[in-house]
Amino acid sequence: MPVLLLLLLFADAREAADAARRWREAREAALVRRYAEFLSIPNTAGDKAGLRRNAEFIAALYREAGAAAEIVNVEGAAPAVYAELPAPGAQRTLLVYAHYDGQPVVPERWAGHAPFEPVLRTAPVEAGGRLLPLEQPRYDREWRLFARSASDDKVSVFALWAALMALRDAGIRPASHLKFLFEGEEEQGSPNLRRLLARLGDRLRGDVWLICDGSVHPSRAQRIVLGARGVATVDITVYGARRGLHSGHYGNWAPNPAMQLARLLASMTDGEGRVLVKGFYDDVVPLSEAEKRALAEIPPADEELRRELGIAATQPFGGLLRESIYQPSLNVRGLESGGTGERASNEVPAVARASLDLRLVKGVDGRRQAERVIAHIREQGFHVIEGRDPDEAERLRYAKIARVDVRPGYNALRTPLDLPIVAEIVRTARAVRQPVYVEPSFGGSLPLVWFEEATRTPLVIVPISNHDDSQHTHNENIRLGNLWDGIELYAALLSM
Amino acid sequence: MPVLLLLLLFADAREAADAARRWREAREAALVRRYAEFLSIPNTAGDKAGLRRNAEFIAALYREAGAAAEIVNVEGAAPAVYAELPAPGAQRTLLVYAHYDGQPVVPERWAGHAPFEPVLRTAPVEAGGRLLPLEQPRYDREWRLFARSASDDKVSVFALWAALMALRDAGIRPASHLKFLFEGEEEQGSPNLRRLLARLGDRLRGDVWLICDGSVHPSRAQRIVLGARGVATVDITVYGARRGLHSGHYGNWAPNPAMQLARLLASMTDGEGRVLVKGFYDDVVPLSEAEKRALAEIPPADEELRRELGIAATQPFGGLLRESIYQPSLNVRGLESGGTGERASNEVPAVARASLDLRLVKGVDGRRQAERVIAHIREQGFHVIEGRDPDEAERLRYAKIARVDVRPGYNALRTPLDLPIVAEIVRTARAVRQPVYVEPSFGGSLPLVWFEEATRTPLVIVPISNHDDSQHTHNENIRLGNLWDGIELYAALLSM
Repeated sequence: MPVLLLLLLFADAREAADAARRWREAREAALVRRYAEFLSIPNTAGDKAGLRRNAEFIAALYREAGAAAEIVNVEGAAPAVYAELPAPGAQRTLLVYAHYDGQPVVPERWAGHAPFEPVLRTAPVEAGGRLLPLEQPRYDREWRLFARSASDDKVSVFALWAALMALRDAGIRPASHLKFLFEGEEEQGSPNLRRLLARLGDRLRGDVWLICDGSVHPSRAQRIVLGARGVATVDITVYGARRGLHSGHYGNWAPNPAMQLARLLASMTDGEGRVLVKGFYDDVVPLSEAEKRALAEIPPADEELRRELGIAATQPFGGLLRESIYQPSLNVRGLESGGTGERASNEVPAVARASLDLRLVKGVDGRRQAERVIAHIREQGFHVIEGRDPDEAERLRYAKIARVDVRPGYNALRTPLDLPIVAEIVRTARAVRQPVYVEPSFGGSLPLVWFEEATRTPLVIVPISNHDDSQHTHNENIRLGNLWDGIELYAALLSM
Repeated sequence: MPVLLLLLLFADAREAADAARRWREAREAALVRRYAEFLSIPNTAGDKAGLRRNAEFIAALYREAGAAAEIVNVEGAAPAVYAELPAPGAQRTLLVYAHYDGQPVVPERWAGHAPFEPVLRTAPVEAGGRLLPLEQPRYDREWRLFARSASDDKVSVFALWAALMALRDAGIRPASHLKFLFEGEEEQGSPNLRRLLARLGDRLRGDVWLICDGSVHPSRAQRIVLGARGVATVDITVYGARRGLHSGHYGNWAPNPAMQLARLLASMTDGEGRVLVKGFYDDVVPLSEAEKRALAEIPPADEELRRELGIAATQPFGGLLRESIYQPSLNVRGLESGGTGERASNEVPAVARASLDLRLVKGVDGRRQAERVIAHIREQGFHVIEGRDPDEAERLRYAKIARVDVRPGYNALRTPLDLPIVAEIVRTARAVRQPVYVEPSFGGSLPLVWFEEATRTPLVIVPISNHDDSQHTHNENIRLGNLWDGIELYAALLSM
């Protein structure tokens, strides 16, 4: 009897996925064109007009799919989109989240096109991917569409829409009420998400959140992920003389802030990737036995990834990739001082800047972790000031001055592995994709704690983008096979 | 008898300087306008059209002053300008050098104007200097003209021309043959200067080189400088993964080239400015007793400079500024990796770059010094490759990879203090300016060794720009008082 029920359930998921596949195969060029149109709307923080156009584009998409969609304006925030598709008589509500904003761009680093001019290539740029016209009679699964947010995270917004369209065109009615929330500030650390969730209040009652963001396993296997790390950022500015100085006239004499910064950063880790900031690992909650077992089922992709990325050795401290993300991290994401290459001039720079991101795991608080880093900077002899430049008196009083700008971000969350709704989602995914790995947490960050605080609803992350998508840097891309598979998986889950 | 001769000589120098002052006072607005016109012609490396326009502008200026001027084209080099003004019956020839090219610019760092749009301000930018229209009924000596090369080194080209014009208009005939050479590649390390000097060959026979470049003493006293440090540059690129990586997904696992670079740089110096690269100080030729005596006469400006620059402490290793420049230096002139501030994104950068300049003193060879730095990088565990990116096999073989790009530049030179021509130049300068300090060397670099090799003629540097001119960085400027005084000093020297 349980066996029969299971088969029926599987049949539904497969039926939805098959309908999505047929629907997509009938209109690939139109889908690529439509997605390129979406990707061509700039979506970086601060671009108010661009963010609004994105929100309007999304609302129009979901109305087309039969949902009631509206733009939600929280004061000072980028617009969000909320869309509902009720299922008459349904007992269950699925809450679905994705975000449409993207990381900042450094346009000159993008190969052969601007970040908001989507292009199609046969392969990644590093692998010599050739440019192709967007319009093609057929599309290879290995081809990729390049643009900011092609994978992070417009792909989820778009694939969920395509899944809805496919279900509607195939006459398949979702068995649950569907509620969609699309945010426009995730890459800034979701500064207004809590207010947004509060604003929507009871409308966000539901049984589970499907968080649609992130990448599949490096082996291209599907993952279901039950949590994410938190993140805080610390920007550090070290000051030398009030102005840049001729390095010949003053070079042995004036302090060099670039060298002071290098010495400071070097003091923060050992050569193996272990963070030397006092207390950095103190509050970590270790993995449960169930979590450890789930992790052990995931084949390590380290060797393959290492070759693909062209690195001879990884940082030994964290161990295998699948384990390393259960430790907090300190990453130098940027350095800047004076000029290099063609822009180098013989100066002693006036300032040097570094930007750090701190990844947080269960138990570790972002503000507290940032305070530990600040304490470390003080221990290295710096006079630390927060959020402002030094004044004249400070310049003349302290030999080493560091400004820090902290964004405490949000903490980590892990949904318990043994909830029935988690098991049902895993079964549905396994009905349409094989293999499916269940992971306790992502390495990346999502503000899951805020969903949890506002809605007391369990969260399950269902990523679809390729792991090698260059998200958060230049040449971000989505592999078409991942977009196609994502539409099918989402069709199965939305029909649940 | 010697006393009388000396007085006559002084009278000539003073007469020339007085004529220059009267000439300038009669046409300050026209001079500022003419100089702004010169400064508005872009002069950075690689701007072929701009460099040529500069050369043509200079040739026209010197023809106007009665000299035979021509543009000298050495293949692959920026055009030089050579100008002659014979003095019938003269027994002596003065060779005069300046350069018209400028350091690279980072336009967004310039306050309120582009680097090639000269503006007039009441004071330095950091001191709140107000913008003024270029055209004024009279000019305060403290006002400054801002543009790339306003001080380094178009001011010499321009002040020498003004001095010639003033002498001609006053009917004062120089007592020596005058030969001028204006170079267009000094800020690139004068890569073709040796070929240029060889091309001009016997035309550059003379009794002394007046090298017109650099800044006066921070107290605003005139300096006569008998040498300069040499310079070599070493650019370092450290490699992480083949592409930037999401710092959440890969942050504890993938190597971070920005952190590797910070650790490498930190290993190069101690906290006091002492360079820890093996052998860095081995070949230094110490100052002679005469040089030490000359140095001791210069009042230390350290405390005043420190306050002006807003630094609480200087690097203790080198001692006083006047002494520190007789040691070789290692300066981090630039750092770059990922993004900072608004451009920061949560990535593990794919590369990190630093640019170093090594200042060389008498006895220290640039190539050899760079080799010591490379050996140090190897000692820190890096696989070092020169002038190219790593190939795939190297990426997979070596955990730490550094590319180095060395420009060995040129070595230092110091003209002996006791030559009669040196004494005469010092006397002439002291006749028109007080005080005049005689310094064995500049901290900055000039390719004096190449002049010496090509012409076997002693070199004396006669700088005129203000020390606080922000040369080599943004907001470069010339204080008008320095331009006026420079015209008078050069008039005295050219009439020698």
